Order: sequence, then structure tokens, then C-alpha cells
Amino acid sequence: MNFASDNSYGAWPEIVAAIGAAAAGAVPSYGDDALTAKVRARVAETFERELAVFPVISGTAANALALATLVPPHGAIFCHGESHIAVDECGAPEFFTHGAKLVPLEGDDAKLVPETLERALAHFQKGFVHHVQPAALSITQSTELGTVYRPGEIAALSELAHAHGMKVHMDGARFANALAHLGCTPAESTWRAGVDAMSFGATKNGALGAEAVIFFNPADARDFEYRRKKAGHLLSKMRFVSAQLDAYLTGRRWLEHAARANRLAQTLAAGLSGVRGAGLAHPVEANAVFAYLPDATVARLRRRGAAFYDWLPSSDGRTLVRLVISFATPEEDVKRFLEVANDE
Amino acid sequence: MNFASDNSYGAWPEIVAAIGAAAAGAVPSYGDDALTAKVRARVAETFERELAVFPVISGTAANALALATLVPPHGAIFCHGESHIAVDECGAPEFFTHGAKLVPLEGDDAKLVPETLERALAHFQKGFVHHVQPAALSITQSTELGTVYRPGEIAALSELAHAHGMKVHMDGARFANALAHLGCTPAESTWRAGVDAMSFGATKNGALGAEAVIFFNPADARDFEYRRKKAGHLLSKMRFVSAQLDAYLTGRRWLEHAARANRLAQTLAAGLSGVRGAGLAHPVEANAVFAYLPDATVARLRRRGAAFYDWLPSSDGRTLVRLVISFATPEEDVKRFLEVANDE
Amino acid sequence: MNFASDNSYGAWPEIVAAIGAAAAGAVPSYGDDALTAKVRARVAETFERELAVFPVISGTAANALALATLVPPHGAIFCHGESHIAVDECGAPEFFTHGAKLVPLEGDDAKLVPETLERALAHFQKGFVHHVQPAALSITQSTELGTVYRPGEIAALSELAHAHGMKVHMDGARFANALAHLGCTPAESTWRAGVDAMSFGATKNGALGAEAVIFFNPADARDFEYRRKKAGHLLSKMRFVSAQLDAYLTGRRWLEHAARANRLAQTLAAGLSGVRGAGLAHPVEANAVFAYLPDATVARLRRRGAAFYDWLPSSDGRTLVRLVISFATPEEDVKRFLEVANDE
Amino acid sequence: MNFASDNSYGAWPEIVAAIGAAAAGAVPSYGDDALTAKVRARVAETFERELAVFPVISGTAANALALATLVPPHGAIFCHGESHIAVDECGAPEFFTHGAKLVPLEGDDAKLVPETLERALAHFQKGFVHHVQPAALSITQSTELGTVYRPGEIAALSELAHAHGMKVHMDGARFANALAHLGCTPAESTWRAGVDAMSFGATKNGALGAEAVIFFNPADARDFEYRRKKAGHLLSKMRFVSAQLDAYLTGRRWLEHAARANRLAQTLAAGLSGVRGAGLAHPVEANAVFAYLPDATVARLRRRGAAFYDWLPSSDGRTLVRLVISFATPEEDVKRFLEVANDE
Repeated sequence: MNFASDNSYGAWPEIVAAIGAAAAGAVPSYGDDALTAKVRARVAETFERELAVFPVISGTAANALALATLVPPHGAIFCHGESHIAVDECGAPEFFTHGAKLVPLEGDDAKLVPETLERALAHFQKGFVHHVQPAALSITQSTELGTVYRPGEIAALSELAHAHGMKVHMDGARFANALAHLGCTPAESTWRAGVDAMSFGATKNGALGAEAVIFFNPADARDFEYRRKKAGHLLSKMRFVSAQLDAYLTGRRWLEHAARANRLAQTLAAGLSGVRGAGLAHPVEANAVFAYLPDATVARLRRRGAAFYDWLPSSDGRTLVRLVISFATPEEDVKRFLEVANDE
Repeated sequence: MNFASDNSYGAWPEIVAAIGAAAAGAVPSYGDDALTAKVRARVAETFERELAVFPVISGTAANALALATLVPPHGAIFCHGESHIAVDECGAPEFFTHGAKLVPLEGDDAKLVPETLERALAHFQKGFVHHVQPAALSITQSTELGTVYRPGEIAALSELAHAHGMKVHMDGARFANALAHLGCTPAESTWRAGVDAMSFGATKNGALGAEAVIFFNPADARDFEYRRKKAGHLLSKMRFVSAQLDAYLTGRRWLEHAARANRLAQTLAAGLSGVRGAGLAHPVEANAVFAYLPDATVARLRRRGAAFYDWLPSSDGRTLVRLVISFATPEEDVKRFLEVANDE
Repeated sequence: MNFASDNSYGAWPEIVAAIGAAAAGAVPSYGDDALTAKVRARVAETFERELAVFPVISGTAANALALATLVPPHGAIFCHGESHIAVDECGAPEFFTHGAKLVPLEGDDAKLVPETLERALAHFQKGFVHHVQPAALSITQSTELGTVYRPGEIAALSELAHAHGMKVHMDGARFANALAHLGCTPAESTWRAGVDAMSFGATKNGALGAEAVIFFNPADARDFEYRRKKAGHLLSKMRFVSAQLDAYLTGRRWLEHAARANRLAQTLAAGLSGVRGAGLAHPVEANAVFAYLPDATVARLRRRGAAFYDWLPSSDGRTLVRLVISFATPEEDVKRFLEVANDE
Repeated sequence: MNFASDNSYGAWPEIVAAIGAAAAGAVPSYGDDALTAKVRARVAETFERELAVFPVISGTAANALALATLVPPHGAIFCHGESHIAVDECGAPEFFTHGAKLVPLEGDDAKLVPETLERALAHFQKGFVHHVQPAALSITQSTELGTVYRPGEIAALSELAHAHGMKVHMDGARFANALAHLGCTPAESTWRAGVDAMSFGATKNGALGAEAVIFFNPADARDFEYRRKKAGHLLSKMRFVSAQLDAYLTGRRWLEHAARANRLAQTLAAGLSGVRGAGLAHPVEANAVFAYLPDATVARLRRRGAAFYDWLPSSDGRTLVRLVISFATPEEDVKRFLEVANDE
């Protein structure tokens, strides 16, 4: 019963098979191989437009490299205070951008709204050399609290960001889960809604370690390739990252895995709603459930082998826990978790 | 006939199988899994001592992270002018160290000798705030020109470096090939010869992308873990890097693959010595052959499908080419290459 | 009628004279001169202890260099959200620390209290590699809103910071004004209250450009000298910065100038309290007055030649303005300002 | 008898007087004052063209900020191996450029020639992501060995640099001495010869601490202002740096002081040529004399109170010493130095 993170699980058999198929023979290294070219085409097709795409092996690298390409050292990056880039990357964006500043904003359910961004922007005087300069907005889709931005919500944020000369970045570590929830196309929820660049994640949804940094306007990619190399993220045997992304984007598997995880999250959420003393903390839209559980329930679940994180320390006899469903979480585990939760 | 680089080839079947075996089930992420613990033990056993070891996915990352951990921003890193860190990493060491300076030194066959280092050190005044301060010596084993340091040569360099308060780093991207040539133990050619930290490479010798940063004195590792995370090099599904290293270090396969590549390099070198107008540029000790070939021969080889790099532009009718043998280079390709080379 | 900033004014005649006196003859450069040695002794005497002190020429340099010396790239610096380092240095701390993170905290009157710091610290898990690690607390004395920390308040913050392994930095750009208000000794309001390092400002109180970075525990200064040099802040003709600091610290002039400025600020504040529709926004304890003034009053004052900054945009017919008194602000200007303010 | 450096001496009386004159009254801070505007006009007039100019307080800051503005983190800066930026700035260019690489080149008398640059450029493959990319050439005028580039020599280097898409930077810490030697206009030896940006030094020739970073094409200045602020080099009381530059550029004093220093250097060089066992190491064209002196002579000079640097350790009974003449070195000191040198 592992609900600690979607990255606690391994990889799809199809992705493992793709690794094996890519292992034979000699091909050009550092991404000049045919498989990497195929991935570029696949991503372009997926998003229905010409774009620049670069495989990397971690979400932190994807985010930090994308942001560093878009933002100067004297720039400000606006993001939610709970965002992965602000909280969980040990300052990677600051390192890669050579010291740009992340401006943490508040917002219900880890989502930003234009009003909050606008208020924050009022503190930055354009061209005033003492202030870092607004350069990018970064949103997470699905968010760190398991919620999902609608295309219209993204469009409203993008419009405001662009009006202030900022670029819009999407941390799409769980983009598949968001898309499965929305039921719209990749294009509709990204560049058609004003997103300029994104970290397109495959790892959490079943790759070994594969993410794609996408610039919807290829000109924005500028010196990305030098930054990736300089950061040790240009792999000599790139074929093995590309093989993962190629298998990942074959057919609709990536969306089906995400949809299944989302469904199990709904099942889990519904079940927990019925647990005495329990309650959901945020809307469950993707593959994560944030629930307040009685401390005794939390203890019992752990005793019976459930793994998950406390999101906040216990308060008033309840603890906010995070439960994440991966592409491979057994349905059985969800059932058993609910049984144990109800087994007072 | 691909002699472009050892990283043009894929991966061992055993390593692919290990990836597959690691793909199932849920385990702790970010390196807290059992397989990563096993790798730590294996590396310690391989080097016959307690040490600190951290898997990463590229040689550039391994080198840059190791050096950044050892060297302050105001430090100087002495290295050969042909070294990978100086020439082929687009300034990664400077990025990770926050601006330390690489001091390129000369030396026959890409090897350094203590006299050269001593002369260079004379230009740096200890404690003089205008000068960067000598902080590390970095040597490559086997070297970028296919030669190998003897343990005694390393010991002499280390002794001098330590006498000046410097740490000794080894770029071991092709450490297996060096070891196969030397026939000594991993310990003898590293920490017993004074090496403090190394990038232990597996990628070029048959992994997908797996290197281990080793600090022989665990205290030297200091803030390595934060640096790795901040650089996006701490993988969530670390098990897949560890699976590679575990399979790599099982038995003596890693040394046998390297020994085979070295032998083929000897065959190739011997064959080329007989080619009219050809000549070897450097001793062939590991898996790379640097040969002067007549321009007509070079052109004919490429016409017949051979891939390799020109190391220097053509001069006096000959070109210096680099030919690298990987763990998987077919013996047949070497024979054919020699036939074409002789086929005037 | 210039109330824009205390740095709008020039320099004391005594400091100008000291510059002139230092201009003749040849002395060792880069701080190895007798005058710089004398300054070191003067600062030690002022603070009644052995310490390490380094002259620099700007407050931003002093703050950023001090923090970079105390905080690793993966560190977090806690500070008030209104602090100069967070708002007005264009990301200098992030640049000098190579990407450490400033964590902006709230607090009335630009002052922090232990409870706020403690709540913020709860979000950072010690040794958890994904989180930047708490490394320093930075407080401003007097604050950016013209208020002053009592020694006991500083001690309470320091105690908490030290308990979490953090260093305490004080931005003392207006330290003289704080001290003049408190009436205590420099030692009492700094190291005796737990401050580890400070930016001791002289510029705003009448130097041309002279600040001293002080580490009360000399061991904390570590590689400061290399950082200062590397940042272009080690002056060849250091004597001219030291001459300023020497003159600044001669007798009690520095405190008298600050006390006079504070008194005029009190006069101004008292006068503005009587202006119809006006009100003070923060306690006036140092040399700055933050007042809400009717927009018509603001406009009239500007028309009559008063210079000052709007601190917040107009709201409900009033604007929050900042009025700063320098060592050289004519008393007459304060009177005239009040006359104009009252002249409806 | 201080010949250690031109920065061992203080400041012109006119510059001290200008400081005093600038000390009174309130003016806008951070460079928005009338005096700074006047300096901008003066510099433009001096160089006979529209340009962007920014005062800073140290040569290291001027060089590092100029280079960081011109060169990306993945760029290479070609310079002489003896240049100040390569040897004497503790890695400041690497810090400010966020890790760009300085490529040290050889050349007689600390001067570069196009052939050397061309050979070095051959090692960098344009657009090859593994190599740092040639981005700037930096030359020093007058050089660190007291020699001077002719405008035609600069033009030849600039032409080559521009042909490779590089910018040309001049470290003009001793530009006045070079100009006094050449007898040409500032324009002829800079932008008319292809120089794109320069560090225009006043400190060594008699200011307290004042340099101007000049971009001859204002568009090249791009984000310089943010970089200067972020580095703590934007002074609040900028008037005091501008006052120095204004006085420095009034009339022809700056050239006359430099010419006098050059003349004394000639006198010293001529005198030393007659000393038994002595010899000049480099042409004496500016204000520095590099002479081999018998060790006994060196010892006697130091005993009699002469201050100067050994440039190389003693070899074969002689030491290469550097003797620098400043704007204020007494003619008497030169005579006495020669007397002592001859006084066997």
C-alpha cells in the first residue's frame, strides 16, 4: 500500500521494452540519433504545432533549465508558494538562473488567479534597477495539491503575464493527469491558452526518468542547448531517454494510465469521505488525494503497511495526509486502504 | 564500422535486464531504495574501503559535481589542456563551482607530470587574494588520448598536490579500460595512489547512463547531496541508475568488456602501423587509437561507411584521426576497417 | 526640501577633509595601509571586542558579501518581506550566495518576531535534500519602516535562530539612527544580543560611500576576502574608504548626527499628526516618517518643491509617503514642509 | 621610493577638491544627478561619439561587468595569459559571467597578435554544444608589461574577432599612459580600431577610485545597469564617483599626468640600461619598467627603502623587477633609485 508518491513506482513494460530495443547497435550520440528525431516529431504532433523540444532526465532539471532560458539573472519568477520549484527543488531555479528570484504567491488549492498575480506585480517597478524584473509566471498542471487549471484559467493568467512582458511556464510533471481530467487536447491546455514553455513529464506516469522541455515558440529556446550541456544534462546515450518518450507517446497509453490513476484517486477520495472524522482538504481532480484523517486512523494505516506523507503536522487530533496514485498502484491497495481506514 | 566514440554503442544485455527487473513494484524514491544501498556496498567492496558514493547519469555531471564539492569559487583546478573538463564540457565545472578557474597544463600523451604542475603552481601565491587559490588537481584515467597513468605516476602527482593543500580528482569515464590495461586493483590506482575523489564511469563501457561519484574520504563529500539535488541530478527513480551500476559491478564483466575493447584497439593499432603512410600518434594503452592516416585513406574509409572523428585538420597530406573501440564494437568491424585502410 | 532619502545628501566636512588628508604620499594598496589598520582597531574598540572587519563601498555589497560568507548556495535566508535585501537589491544576495533563497516573512512595522520565524522554520525539514536549509536570519536596524529593534527583541530572535543552527546578520545601513534611539552601546544591540555579522553603514549618515562588514566571531569571516576581491569590491586605494570610516568613528559625531536626524523626524512626525486628514503609519523611532497624507496635500508639497517617495499608491484619497531625514537635512526644511502641509 | 604600483599613490588635488565641491546639498541618488549626466557628456565628447557610459569604483568591477554584459555563461573570452583579468582578479570575470571561460594566449611583451588568436580559435567549433563559444577578445592598453598596442594592431585583432562574431573589450586601466605614448585620439585607439567596450581607468592615474565602463555601441550595454546593481556597484552617492571623473576629464590633465609618468619611466629605463649587469625585459612604452637587476642591486635598493615587486624569482643571479611610475612619483625618487642602483 504505497501512496507516498507516483514516483515510488517503476516503469511501464512497454517503456522497459523500448529501452531494450534501443540498446543494440551504434548510433550518433548526444541526441543526433533517429529516435530522438522521432520523439521531436511525436511531441510536435501531440501538440499540433512546430516547437522546440529537448529530452532531459528529471523534472527539476526540466523546470530549472526552462526557466533559466526564459529569465535573466535579474528576473522574477512568480509562482505559487506551494509549487515544486519554490519548495522542493533545493533552489535549483535560483542556481540555473544565476540568482533570479522566485516570488511565492498564495492561492486556494495551489492554484493562482490573475488578481493575486496583479497585486504582486504592483510591487515591481518596471525598469527600476533596484527591483528584480518580472520575467516569468510558472504554474503547475496538475498542481501540487492535486487540482487542475481549466484552459480558461490558464488563458486569463497568461494574458496578464504577457501584458507585463512575462513568459508563461508550465510545470507539467503530472500533465497527463491534468489532461485526463480536463478531456481537452494538449494544445488547448498549453500554447492555445498562452503557455510559452513547459516541462512535459513522463517519469511520474511511468517512465524511468524522462521529461521533455518544450518551447512552443522555437525562438524562445535560444541558448537552451548550451545550458543543458553545461548542466551535465545532455546525455551521450540520449537514445535511452528518447526511447522512453517515444514509447510513452505511442497511442493513448499515457492518457489512459493517467485516467486510471485519476479514477482510483476518485475512488479513494469517495471512500475516505465516508470515514468517520475524515475530510477532503482539496478538490480531487488528478491523482492525488489530500485528506484529513484522525490520528488514530493514520497510525493504524501505517501499522498495516500503508506508506504516505503527512502534509501538515497533527492538529486537533487530525493529520492532513497526501495520498498519490500512480499508473501502477494496484486497485486492490486502494480497497485495502479504505478497509483499514474504516476498520475502527 | 562506428569508431566515433564508445558512447555510440548501446548497453549490455545484462544491464537492460537489470532495468527490467527493477521496474516492478513500489520502492522509496530519491535513492532511499535497497538497490541503491546495494550499489553503495558494491562500490565500497570494489575499492576495498569505506567511502561515499553517489550515482548520477552523466560524466559531465559527475565531474562537475565532484569538483564543485572540493573546490571553492575562488579555487583553481589544474588539469591537462586536452582534458574533457577543460575542452568538452562547455564550462560545466565553472558553472557548478560558481566560477572556479581551470588551469590547463601541457603534457605528452595527455598525461601530466609533477614538474609541469610544480611550474604552474609557482604562479599562484598562497593566500594572495588577487590570485585564485590552488584547490584541486584533476587527471583523466584513461586519458583523452588513450594513454594510462601508472599508480606510481598518480602517486607522484598526488603527493605534490597534497603538499600544496590540493585535492586530487580522477575523471574515470574510462576507468575500466585503464584498469584492464594496468592489471592492478581499483584501490591501487586510486586512493592508494592518493586520489581523493573520482568520477567512476559506466556509461562508455556499456551502461545506459550511469556514473558514480566517489569520495574516498566520506568527509570530503560534505554538501554533495544538496549540490546534486540543486543541479537536477537527484533522480526520483534512482533505482534505475542503481540497477545499471549493480549489474555493471557484478562479477568481472566490467573489466572483461574493457579488456576486450583494449585488445581490439591493439589489433587496430598494430594493423594501422602497417598501412603505408600511416603512423600512431600516441601509445595505445586503452581503447582508443590515435593514428595519422593519409587523406586518401581517410576519405576511402568514410566512403565505405566508417565513422570516426578527425582530431586535427589535415596537414601535409595526413589527418590525425581518433578511433574508439567500445564494449560492443564487432571484431569484424576492426578487420574490415583495416582491409579498407590497406585497400589502395 | 529633499526628504527622498538620507543618501540624497552629501558628506560631512570632516569626512571630506579626511579624504584630502589621505590623498598625499605612497602607501600600500588593497588595505595593507596604516589607516585601514587603524579603522580595524577603531571598529573593535567601538564594539568592545575582537572582531573581523572589512571596508566596502556600498550597503548592497556589504549585505550580499556578508550573507554569501555565512550561507551556502543551498541555504535559506529569513528576512522581513519589506527588507532591503529582499526588495531593493535586485537580487544581489542571490547572486553573491550563488542562488540561496530569501524567505520573506511578515511582521508589523517591518520587524520580525520569533513566532513568525518559528512558523516559517516549520516548513523546512532539516537535512531533507529537497529543501533549502535554514542558514541565516537577517534583520534590519533601524528597519526599512523607521522602527527599531530593542536588544531584547534581537536576543529573542537570535536565540531562536541559533537554536536552529542559523547565523544572525544585521543590515545596519542606519545603525547609527537605531543606536541614537536606543541609547545603548553598539555591543549591547549587536553581538551581546546574538548578532553574528553586520553591515555597519556610514554612507547614509554622512560618508561618501563607506560601509564595514563586521564578523563578531572572526572565524566566521572565512573566505570573505576572496569573495570581496572576486566581486570587484577590494579597492586598490582602500585608504580612501578607511579615511571615511576613521573620520566617521572619531568621537561621537556619528551618533550625534543620527540623533539630530531622529529628532527632526520626531518634529516632522509630531507636526504631521496635526495635519487634517494625515496620520502616521508606523512608530517613528529613527530618521524616517511614514505618513498618510491627503492627496491634495501631497500634490501641494510637490508643487512647492518637496521631494519624497510615495510608499503605496493613493487609496481613498490618501497616499502613504516616506520622508527621510539625513544628517544634513536643514531644520528649516522640516518647518517649511509642515507649513506647506498645513497650508490648505 | 615607491615603485610598487601606480595605485600606491593617492589622488590629484583637483580630484580631492571636486569631491569637496560635490559634498554639499541634496541631489538625486544612484546616478540620476546632474554631475553624472555631465560625466556622460564629457566621456562622449572625449571619444567623439554617442556611447553608453557607467561609472564604477574599481577596475576589476569594470572589467568583470563589461565582460559579463558581452559574454554568455557558455562563452569564451580570449586574453593574454599575463592579463589582469586572467591573473589578478581572483576569478572575477568567471563570477560575473556565471562561469564563462578565459582562454589565456601567449604573446611577446603581453601583446596579442592575430595569428595567435586565430590558432586558438581553431580549437573551438562554432555551434558545437560541447565547446564554450568564442564571445569576446579582451586586450589591455597599456599592457601589464608596460607596452602599448598601436591602433593598427588593435584594428587587426578586432577585425579577426568580429569576423568570428566576437566582441572586443579593452581593459584601459592605464589607458591614459597608452594614449600619451601613442599621441593619437581616444577614438583612434578604441572604437575606430574596432573596440566595442572598454574599462576606462582613472584610479591608477590619480582618482580615488573611479573607472568608467564604456559601450561604444549603446545597444551592447543591454542589461548592464541590472548587473551593476546586482553586484553592489551602483553607488547611492554616485555624485562622488562622477565628481572624480569630471575633474579627471577636465582639460588635458589626465594626459599630462600620464605623459609625465611615461617620461619618468623612460628616464628610469635609460638609467637602468647603464647599470652593470642590468637589462630591460620589455620595451618601455608606458609608465612601467621591467628590468633584470643583479640580486645584489635588488637587495641594496630595498635596504635603501625602495619598494617594488619581483616579477619573477631570481635566476642566474638576476631578478626581473617591475617598477611603476605614478602621476605623483617624485622625479627625485627616480634619480635616487638610479643612484642607489649604480652605487656598487
